[in-house]
Amino acid sequence: MPSQSRTKGDVYVDFENCLLTLSRRVDDLEDQFINRLRKGVNIPSISAYTSHRHHVFAMAEFIVREMESLGIKARLKPLGKEGKSDFDLSPMIIGCYGKAKSKPTILVYSHYDVQPATLEDGWMCNPWELTDVNGVLYGRGTSDDKGPLLGWLCAIEAFQKAEIELPVNLVFCLEGMEENGSVGFRKALQEEADTALPHIDAVCITDTTWTSNSHPSLTRGLRGVLFYIITVTGAQRDAHSGIFGGHLSEPMTDVAKLMGSLVDSKGKILVPGIYDEVKAVSEKEYTAIESLHITPEDIDPGLGGRNLHKNMADTLLARWRLPSLSLHRIENATLSAGAVTTIPARIQGKFSIRTVADMTTDNIERAVQNHIEEQFKQLNSMNTMELACVHRSSWFFEDIDHWNYQAAKVATRTVWGVEPDITCEGGSIPIALDLKEILNRNVLLLPMGKPSDGAHSINGNLNGIKVFGTYLFEVSKMCKTPK
Amino acid sequence: MPSQSRTKGDVYVDFENCLLTLSRRVDDLEDQFINRLRKGVNIPSISAYTSHRHHVFAMAEFIVREMESLGIKARLKPLGKEGKSDFDLSPMIIGCYGKAKSKPTILVYSHYDVQPATLEDGWMCNPWELTDVNGVLYGRGTSDDKGPLLGWLCAIEAFQKAEIELPVNLVFCLEGMEENGSVGFRKALQEEADTALPHIDAVCITDTTWTSNSHPSLTRGLRGVLFYIITVTGAQRDAHSGIFGGHLSEPMTDVAKLMGSLVDSKGKILVPGIYDEVKAVSEKEYTAIESLHITPEDIDPGLGGRNLHKNMADTLLARWRLPSLSLHRIENATLSAGAVTTIPARIQGKFSIRTVADMTTDNIERAVQNHIEEQFKQLNSMNTMELACVHRSSWFFEDIDHWNYQAAKVATRTVWGVEPDITCEGGSIPIALDLKEILNRNVLLLPMGKPSDGAHSINGNLNGIKVFGTYLFEVSKMCKTPK
Repeated sequence: MPSQSRTKGDVYVDFENCLLTLSRRVDDLEDQFINRLRKGVNIPSISAYTSHRHHVFAMAEFIVREMESLGIKARLKPLGKEGKSDFDLSPMIIGCYGKAKSKPTILVYSHYDVQPATLEDGWMCNPWELTDVNGVLYGRGTSDDKGPLLGWLCAIEAFQKAEIELPVNLVFCLEGMEENGSVGFRKALQEEADTALPHIDAVCITDTTWTSNSHPSLTRGLRGVLFYIITVTGAQRDAHSGIFGGHLSEPMTDVAKLMGSLVDSKGKILVPGIYDEVKAVSEKEYTAIESLHITPEDIDPGLGGRNLHKNMADTLLARWRLPSLSLHRIENATLSAGAVTTIPARIQGKFSIRTVADMTTDNIERAVQNHIEEQFKQLNSMNTMELACVHRSSWFFEDIDHWNYQAAKVATRTVWGVEPDITCEGGSIPIALDLKEILNRNVLLLPMGKPSDGAHSINGNLNGIKVFGTYLFEVSKMCKTPK
Repeated sequence: MPSQSRTKGDVYVDFENCLLTLSRRVDDLEDQFINRLRKGVNIPSISAYTSHRHHVFAMAEFIVREMESLGIKARLKPLGKEGKSDFDLSPMIIGCYGKAKSKPTILVYSHYDVQPATLEDGWMCNPWELTDVNGVLYGRGTSDDKGPLLGWLCAIEAFQKAEIELPVNLVFCLEGMEENGSVGFRKALQEEADTALPHIDAVCITDTTWTSNSHPSLTRGLRGVLFYIITVTGAQRDAHSGIFGGHLSEPMTDVAKLMGSLVDSKGKILVPGIYDEVKAVSEKEYTAIESLHITPEDIDPGLGGRNLHKNMADTLLARWRLPSLSLHRIENATLSAGAVTTIPARIQGKFSIRTVADMTTDNIERAVQNHIEEQFKQLNSMNTMELACVHRSSWFFEDIDHWNYQAAKVATRTVWGVEPDITCEGGSIPIALDLKEILNRNVLLLPMGKPSDGAHSINGNLNGIKVFGTYLFEVSKMCKTPK
């Protein structure tokens, strides 16, 4: 029986055959693909260190050369200076491949900068040399996010070598500051969206991984985050505790009490009203979570810390579905030496709240403000207190019935032979929301593979490339373009 | 009328005349005295910086030269290495002046090292150049403790120039590590006391100042201190709060709550039993405190902090007569980067308790241990907690009816024309206790002058020298030596 097929312009596409051909071509090209990744890993494009900024630029140029060699029209978009420094922000790379009106257009987001890495961090090999250990490739960026980024270029190469026309148009939006707060991204995307980007039908972000180390998944949700600083000020400078202890009002006392009032030792947030907008977990939802292919080992990367919850489903709910409040630091905020026996004059407590659907930022801010003010009042302190919410980014929760997710689901099932889990992440990826808000399109978080840190199996990578290709076929089937 | 006088060996002492002559000689020698202090201030003998250790040694050699020029037999006693480093500890200086069996012997303690000082700290002039601004001498160490130390040498010079025999024997015990924890002091003093020191009748420490800026005082009490570290450990390394927030047991939560349970925002210690051994303040005591010549300005050196108490007497009681508990620092105790959005794996809370007569260290330690263990139990935390008392030194409260204090009282009244206040200090001077315990003698804390930081009026300094001289006369009158 012939598989489902249809005519797209001049191209007759026999999907099953195409997929088979494409898959073989991916396997054939293994050496070239690994070589491409090797060149990428060699460049220590650490965006957090200004000393490495030239490497980030070198990485951008490497990517553009690779894109151009595949016929992708690529350009660097400068993002200006970093803060008030003389350092240029790493540029955005905009790439366009295909512009057929008859095809849907997918915007692919990825980033070409990486986190720092040294042998001292526990790397078993030079993190800037791609190293094959029993079929597993080690090197900084193989997972996050050079592997997935270059995976897209490999997918295009496979299409070309297989002589199959790409069934969609692709727009690449590649960032070089992701590991340094995505500085400049939103503004640049806005500019491009207003003037230069073609019509986009959906977005595909490859900057996530599976939740499990053995079972594929698609990510549909991310938690938001509000970051707070409590500042309590007493004197103008630190005081000698021998001299002043007992008659000077001490800011640290207030900060310890205020911070301690926010959450209990079992992780329950003590701010009144904070759970009001969080939907109760339904039985159906709980059962769905229980049925995911995630093991305790998948979610504890050897931290050795105690889990507050007894079972996997409760743990995943705590990570994905419920807000959390973490106390990060309590710091001496004056410039004085901060000797250990002083009474600090000014103390800052830093904490953050991870938010989930359907919490509204305004309501959370109001609840936290009320709670802290009430607590401070009860302390009857003579110090002054300030509470500031210095960063807020909202949660992300995407519609998985959209063809974009359905295409990814079919593609993953086709390549891996199993139904992907639909999962969330506990962290925040602000650019997912930026892309959603600015482009107003469905945003798919399509992982390339396992969550291992810095390592990827060669087979996994090849399958990841096949998923990308298959996803494009499915998009071309499911997306009702042109409108 | 001739003043009270008596024969001491061959020396006929007309006290009143002698004091007058001595006093004039001190005034005459002003330039020489200032010059000696200038040379001392020039040497940046900061003991806390190993980079400055050679300056501390240079200062020791300067002092020894000055002592020898006055006929004091002086030697350097090496104290070994600092910890496991290659740095030599600054030596102890032992000096002996006079050994007449007929005279009492006073051990004078002082230190020749200083705290760091830079213009950036707010100094109006180079802290290592003695600067005369309208008759006030500025320079690091003029108050603490080079001024008083050299003041003793000046006093001896004045006796010599006045051709008056010193009415007592002096033993100098001068330290060069006082501002760096008095490392090695106690052991060295013990060795000297066992083998080399002559019989000592009493001790005079000049490492304190008046409490008031206008009225002389003698110090009879010091608070003790117990320094604690609470360590709470969760995971092996810091964790991402987005990923793990809500299901990882967080050490910071426990530390904030434990620290917050120790004291309230009004300075009241919340550890049950902590006040049990502290005697209630009697009406007589309160009245005595009220009558001291101390103003609010005397005890607040421009800190701008809020005072927990409404009046001076309550403030002084809080500083001298009651225990206090200060929370110093809450620190990330792992070696990881400590980014602000992580869940710290291990947190240390540091606090100290200032103790007063008649608190016993064992009882305090038991009370704190019980309280913290009980609080931690109530938290129902999954983390592990350790409490360690890492430093303890007892309070000091001296018998002021002893001739040593009475001699200082008369001397101060004679020179300044007013009765000195008898005061305490809120801080701790462990060497005061060391001297008391090892030598088993009355230990007088005899201030040279005002508590201004880094500055001393020239007249005040000269009067301080006169007090030293007069004190020696009074000692020779009051001390029933030889036994």
